[in-house]
Amino acid sequence: MAASQDPFSPESAARAPSAGEKETGRVEAFSDGVFAIAITLLVLNLKVPTASAGGLVPALARQWPTYLAYLTSFATILVMWVNHHRLFTHIHRTTGAFLFLNGLLLLFVTAVPFPTSLVSEHLRSSDARAAAAIYAGTYFLIAVAFNVLWRYASGGMRLIDPRSNPGDVRAITRNYRFGPVFYFSAFLLAFVSVPASLGLCAALAIFFAVTGSIERPADW
Amino acid sequence: MAASQDPFSPESAARAPSAGEKETGRVEAFSDGVFAIAITLLVLNLKVPTASAGGLVPALARQWPTYLAYLTSFATILVMWVNHHRLFTHIHRTTGAFLFLNGLLLLFVTAVPFPTSLVSEHLRSSDARAAAAIYAGTYFLIAVAFNVLWRYASGGMRLIDPRSNPGDVRAITRNYRFGPVFYFSAFLLAFVSVPASLGLCAALAIFFAVTGSIERPADW
Amino acid sequence: MAASQDPFSPESAARAPSAGEKETGRVEAFSDGVFAIAITLLVLNLKVPTASAGGLVPALARQWPTYLAYLTSFATILVMWVNHHRLFTHIHRTTGAFLFLNGLLLLFVTAVPFPTSLVSEHLRSSDARAAAAIYAGTYFLIAVAFNVLWRYASGGMRLIDPRSNPGDVRAITRNYRFGPVFYFSAFLLAFVSVPASLGLCAALAIFFAVTGSIERPADW
Amino acid sequence: MAASQDPFSPESAARAPSAGEKETGRVEAFSDGVFAIAITLLVLNLKVPTASAGGLVPALARQWPTYLAYLTSFATILVMWVNHHRLFTHIHRTTGAFLFLNGLLLLFVTAVPFPTSLVSEHLRSSDARAAAAIYAGTYFLIAVAFNVLWRYASGGMRLIDPRSNPGDVRAITRNYRFGPVFYFSAFLLAFVSVPASLGLCAALAIFFAVTGSIERPADW
Repeated sequence: MAASQDPFSPESAARAPSAGEKETGRVEAFSDGVFAIAITLLVLNLKVPTASAGGLVPALARQWPTYLAYLTSFATILVMWVNHHRLFTHIHRTTGAFLFLNGLLLLFVTAVPFPTSLVSEHLRSSDARAAAAIYAGTYFLIAVAFNVLWRYASGGMRLIDPRSNPGDVRAITRNYRFGPVFYFSAFLLAFVSVPASLGLCAALAIFFAVTGSIERPADW
Repeated sequence: MAASQDPFSPESAARAPSAGEKETGRVEAFSDGVFAIAITLLVLNLKVPTASAGGLVPALARQWPTYLAYLTSFATILVMWVNHHRLFTHIHRTTGAFLFLNGLLLLFVTAVPFPTSLVSEHLRSSDARAAAAIYAGTYFLIAVAFNVLWRYASGGMRLIDPRSNPGDVRAITRNYRFGPVFYFSAFLLAFVSVPASLGLCAALAIFFAVTGSIERPADW
Repeated sequence: MAASQDPFSPESAARAPSAGEKETGRVEAFSDGVFAIAITLLVLNLKVPTASAGGLVPALARQWPTYLAYLTSFATILVMWVNHHRLFTHIHRTTGAFLFLNGLLLLFVTAVPFPTSLVSEHLRSSDARAAAAIYAGTYFLIAVAFNVLWRYASGGMRLIDPRSNPGDVRAITRNYRFGPVFYFSAFLLAFVSVPASLGLCAALAIFFAVTGSIERPADW
Repeated sequence: MAASQDPFSPESAARAPSAGEKETGRVEAFSDGVFAIAITLLVLNLKVPTASAGGLVPALARQWPTYLAYLTSFATILVMWVNHHRLFTHIHRTTGAFLFLNGLLLLFVTAVPFPTSLVSEHLRSSDARAAAAIYAGTYFLIAVAFNVLWRYASGGMRLIDPRSNPGDVRAITRNYRFGPVFYFSAFLLAFVSVPASLGLCAALAIFFAVTGSIERPADW
């Protein structure tokens, strides 16, 4: 497609990025859009209580499972966006298979508002266990999809920028490994204790946020 | 508009892309936004069942048509975004007519959540046939709009980047031809067998995903 | 802010656009996002009819005012996005006042789904006149906001790219003048004939689309 | 990550921005997406009144608290986007902590549609005080988050572009200081007078818009 361009001329460098690079940009932009919309749609789960005998403030206070689920989902999608972001720092081209693995990840991310509202509405019902298991299970699927996407991209440095530090690439592979284990634990925990399962999901979002901040304090 | 700039100076190349190129960027960004929002709004079709005698899990299981429609629509919009994406790899300028043909395509893409919820709510009613026909019919219209858009852009290489490989351009023309035929078959099939019609729509999304991956394994 | 950079070095040209240019990009991206979301939210007005005696197809057919309002609003927002797009081809920097005039325009654009659903739900009630007047009135306000924004930007070439063709700039000023007149006519027409008022709104979207395509066939 | 590139070659300058710069771009794009979606979702608070004895126009007129809350929230999110925008003019790299402080800000911004609909539905009920306090309280949290984000970024010029004018940076620090004080006053005022509290919120949006426009008339 860009066969006739001279890669060493500044003009062609600025005006005609190779197809791979250009398309990485569009995949990032599309993914960012999906993350941004999914995180913003969470607010639609917050429902205004209708006027009741006890007044607005107690009615709002009774909705605490909704706020808890909102905060946890917001933090988790944000951490996932940051991770997606970091992953693309190292990826400099795409393939068809990569686009569809990324699509699988986005499928689970866009689904998050649904288990979030399941937990909001069923946390104090007899179905709390099922709701919490589905909630943690969704995050487990996202963590698995992240690993599959990254393994595909980084295996044999398939799609990795040759300028990337191989140590950084291996560090991401190591870090991502823990996600599925932790979220599968949260899934199992739902059958034992609903608060423990949701608490683990919330703790994981905070943990990943903090380790993310510590690990590369300078410039990621 | 950019008459006074020197196209061979690196500064002007970096700072003042010609109007056509700049506007291709904005058309892509706007289209990406619309695709990203349409794909994310699909989740609003997933409704939390109210507490019922049988418990949450059976109530969720009874919603299987909703999940099937959700997955098919998600995969189809994703494949269409990938195709839109590939098409713009070759297009380097826009015209007014192109913008409006692209708008017609986006009109049908943004409408997808509506037939998706039609199928979700009517798959097990006596109106399943009509719902499935409208669902496949929407995809037929999208496939036709894709062909019209691409024929307009590629006819006489009207809007095609002169650096594009003519073989790649012809390959897209050949591939796109099949979409309307397949989706029109799914439309007709709805009057014979609803599961066959929906199954064909789901299979087409998977088929286009896989052939897309095989066809250009290296760098699209 | 960019005082220490050498504008003639290719490196600084590529890496440090002046503040004005960078911010035009963000205003365009933000505006594009708002247009893309507003146009996609229109689909939420399409409601799945509940199962009724007569079947799904007649129930859908009875919703024709909804589809008419959907198509007209979609086409109008699209035309407005194209116009916004063309306007920014000539604007190369922003001011605080410009950002807020652009915000006023976006306020009216984001409001469009509301009058659209007013018309959808009241077109066959005794309130059709009021609904149609509010619908056309919203477009009148958008057309006025467009004119105010452009007059501010183009007055004395305040924010116009010095490389822009003054004839192109004056042509936009001339074209924009008609919008408020036509939409005010549609507003007044609502009190005489609701179909004529809505028909004029639909015709204007098509008219602007076609004249837009004819006027600059080559490269806008 | 970019260790092997030659920063003085025009080609690498155009094609391989340093990680920090690239990621600032994605943070801005993601944040813009969230602001754009939050501001556009506000329209979902505008509900079409059902046909009533008195007609559509009086029914719409009775919804004035909804329009007031809509306009105030729209203007406030827009001003906040402009501020976010200006802040990023000076920030040229990110850290993990910065990404999460920005995420905290976005959390409160995405929540705005909820207190907006609280005020819309409860402004004329006995719970108006609580609704107005929560509304102003949300803006107070946003103003605090803005200050924390900026103090972190600008403290010791941590993430500030070395080419930024230190006077501009200090001016932002001075201006931002007032937000929390004003919004905390609006919060307290809600317990005394609901109209005064909401009026202050509306006035602040207009005030920040106007001072923003005056302060840097030339090119922000």
